[in-house]
Amino acid sequence: MLTFEALSKTFSEFIGTYSFPSEPKQLYDPVRYIMSLGGKRIRPLLALAAYNIYHDNVEKANHAAMTVEVFHNFSLLHDDIMDNAFKRRGKDAVHIKYDENSAILSGDVMMIWSYKLLEDYTANIVDIYKVFTKTSIEVCEGQRMDMDFETREEVSILEYIEMITLKTSVLLGAALKMGALVADASKQDQSHLYEFGKNVGIAFQIQDDVLDTYGDEATFGKRIGGDILQKKKTFLYLKSLELLSESQVERLKSLFALDYTIVNEATHIEEVRNLYNKAFVNVHADETKLVYQQLAFSHLDAISVNKEKTEILRSFAEKLLNRKV
Amino acid sequence: MLTFEALSKTFSEFIGTYSFPSEPKQLYDPVRYIMSLGGKRIRPLLALAAYNIYHDNVEKANHAAMTVEVFHNFSLLHDDIMDNAFKRRGKDAVHIKYDENSAILSGDVMMIWSYKLLEDYTANIVDIYKVFTKTSIEVCEGQRMDMDFETREEVSILEYIEMITLKTSVLLGAALKMGALVADASKQDQSHLYEFGKNVGIAFQIQDDVLDTYGDEATFGKRIGGDILQKKKTFLYLKSLELLSESQVERLKSLFALDYTIVNEATHIEEVRNLYNKAFVNVHADETKLVYQQLAFSHLDAISVNKEKTEILRSFAEKLLNRKV
Repeated sequence: MLTFEALSKTFSEFIGTYSFPSEPKQLYDPVRYIMSLGGKRIRPLLALAAYNIYHDNVEKANHAAMTVEVFHNFSLLHDDIMDNAFKRRGKDAVHIKYDENSAILSGDVMMIWSYKLLEDYTANIVDIYKVFTKTSIEVCEGQRMDMDFETREEVSILEYIEMITLKTSVLLGAALKMGALVADASKQDQSHLYEFGKNVGIAFQIQDDVLDTYGDEATFGKRIGGDILQKKKTFLYLKSLELLSESQVERLKSLFALDYTIVNEATHIEEVRNLYNKAFVNVHADETKLVYQQLAFSHLDAISVNKEKTEILRSFAEKLLNRKV
Repeated sequence: MLTFEALSKTFSEFIGTYSFPSEPKQLYDPVRYIMSLGGKRIRPLLALAAYNIYHDNVEKANHAAMTVEVFHNFSLLHDDIMDNAFKRRGKDAVHIKYDENSAILSGDVMMIWSYKLLEDYTANIVDIYKVFTKTSIEVCEGQRMDMDFETREEVSILEYIEMITLKTSVLLGAALKMGALVADASKQDQSHLYEFGKNVGIAFQIQDDVLDTYGDEATFGKRIGGDILQKKKTFLYLKSLELLSESQVERLKSLFALDYTIVNEATHIEEVRNLYNKAFVNVHADETKLVYQQLAFSHLDAISVNKEKTEILRSFAEKLLNRKV
C-alpha cells in the first residue's frame, strides 16, 4: 500500500512526462495550458488509490487516472466559456488567454483524448468505456440542470442534490470504479467504490456551499459570498426557502430575482446571510452533508478487503470533508 | 446485396425510431433538432454498405452508422459556432435557434453519445473504438488547420490537401472501416475500404471547391462565389498563386487580404474568377480530383471479394463525384 504522498508523486511524474502532440500548435497549446494550471488532482488520485487496494504496480492505472483528469479539465474549460468566467485557478481562463473558438475546439479534442487514453487497456475494457461514457453524459446533464436552475422559479432540494450528483459527484465515483476495473476487482467492490466516491462528492459539494457563505476567506481560497452575489440556488438558499416564514421567503426571493440589482455587495451578502441564519440553514447543511458522508463510509467499509487497505481512501475523504468522523 | 435505396431505407427507419433522452429537455432538444435537419446521410450509408459487402443483416451496422452521423452533426454544430454561421441546411443553426451555451453543451453530449452508440458491439470492439477516436482527433486537427489558414500568409497545396483530408475525408474512410470491423472483414479489406473512402472524400472536397466558384446555383444548392466572398484559401486560390504571373498573384493576394473591403460582391467574384481562369485552375483542379478518384477506385478494386459486391460503393462514389469513369 502506497501512502497518499507516494500516489501523488506517481501521478505527478506521469503527468510531467506525458506529452500531447506539438501540432497543430493552436489546438494543443490550450490543452497544455489548462493541464499545467494544476489543481488538487483529486480524481486521478482516487483512481490510483482504488487500483492500489488490489495491486502494487499503480503505474498501470495512470492512463485511467489521466482520462478522468483530462475529462475534468475539458469540462472546466467549456464551463468557463458558458459561465463567462474570466479566471481559472487564479490564472486567465482558456477562452480569455486564447479565444473562444480555441477554447471550444481544444475542449473538444480533450474530450476525445480522454477516450484515447483508455485504448491500451485490455481487461474489462468494455466496462471501462461504459462507466466513462455514462459518467461523461451525466456530467453534461448536470451542467445543463445547473444552467436551467438559474432561470427556474422553483427548484426542490431533491433536484438540487440530483444536479450536484450529476455535475460533480459521479465523476469521483467513476474515477474509483475505473481504478477498480483496471485492477479487475469484483463487481461488488467496483460498485461500493463507486458509491463511496459519489457520496463523498455530494457531501463535499454541500460543504462547498456552506464554505462559500460561512468560510474563512484565507483558507477557502475564494471570495466569501460569491454564490450569493451570483444569486446561485445553493443548498443554503433552497433549504432556507423551506424553513423561513412567508415574508422572509418573499424577501429572500426578491434578493435573488434575476432583475434585482445589487447596490452594495457587502450589505447584500450580510442581509442574505442573516436570512440564512434565521433558518439555521448551516446546521441543516451540516446534517445533510453528514448523511452522505456516513453513506460513503458505509460503502467503503463494505469492500471485501482488509480495513487497512482502504485506510488511505478513508483518510483522504476525511481530509476532503475536513472533519474526523 | 441490398440496393442503395434499401440501405438508405434501413438507416432512415433506424434513425426514425432512435430516441435520445427526453430530459434535460434543453440538453437533448438541440440534439434532436440538428439530427432532424436531414442531410445526405452519406457517412452512415457508407458504414452500412461496407458491412453489407460481407453480411446481409445490415441492421447490425446501424449503431456504428449512427455513431459517425451523430459525430458528423456534432462537428457541424460546433463548427457553426466557430464560423459564426447562421444557417445549417437552410434552417437556423443550433446556436441561433437556441443559444451559444446550448450549442456548446449539446454538441459535447453528442460527441460522447457517438461513443455510447458503440458500446454494444463485441467483436473488434477495441479496434472500432481506436479508429473512431483517431478519426475524431483528426477532424479536430483539420478544423484547427482550417482556422489557422485564414490568417496565415503562405499555405501550400500539400498543406491544403492535408487539411481537407483531416477535416472531412478521414471520417468517410472511418465510416467504411467501422462497417468492415463490425462485419469482421480482413485487415487488408478494412484498410482498402478506409483508403477508398478517404480518397473519395478528398476528390469530393476538391470538386466542392470548383462547384462553389464554377457551379450552377440551382443544382449546387449554395450561393456561387461564397468561398471567394469569405476569402477562403481553397484549392483554386492556392493553385492560382502557383500558376499566375507575379503581378496577377499580387492582385489576387490583395483581393483576399483580411483588411480588404469588398465593395461590390458580384464584381469582386467576377474579378477573382477571371484571375482563376487565367491560371486555368479549374482544369488543374479536375486533374487533381481525378488522381484521388482513381486512387480511391484502385483500393476498391483491391478488396478480396467479387466485383459485384462492391458495385454499390463504386456507383455511389461515381454519383458523389458526379462523373462516370
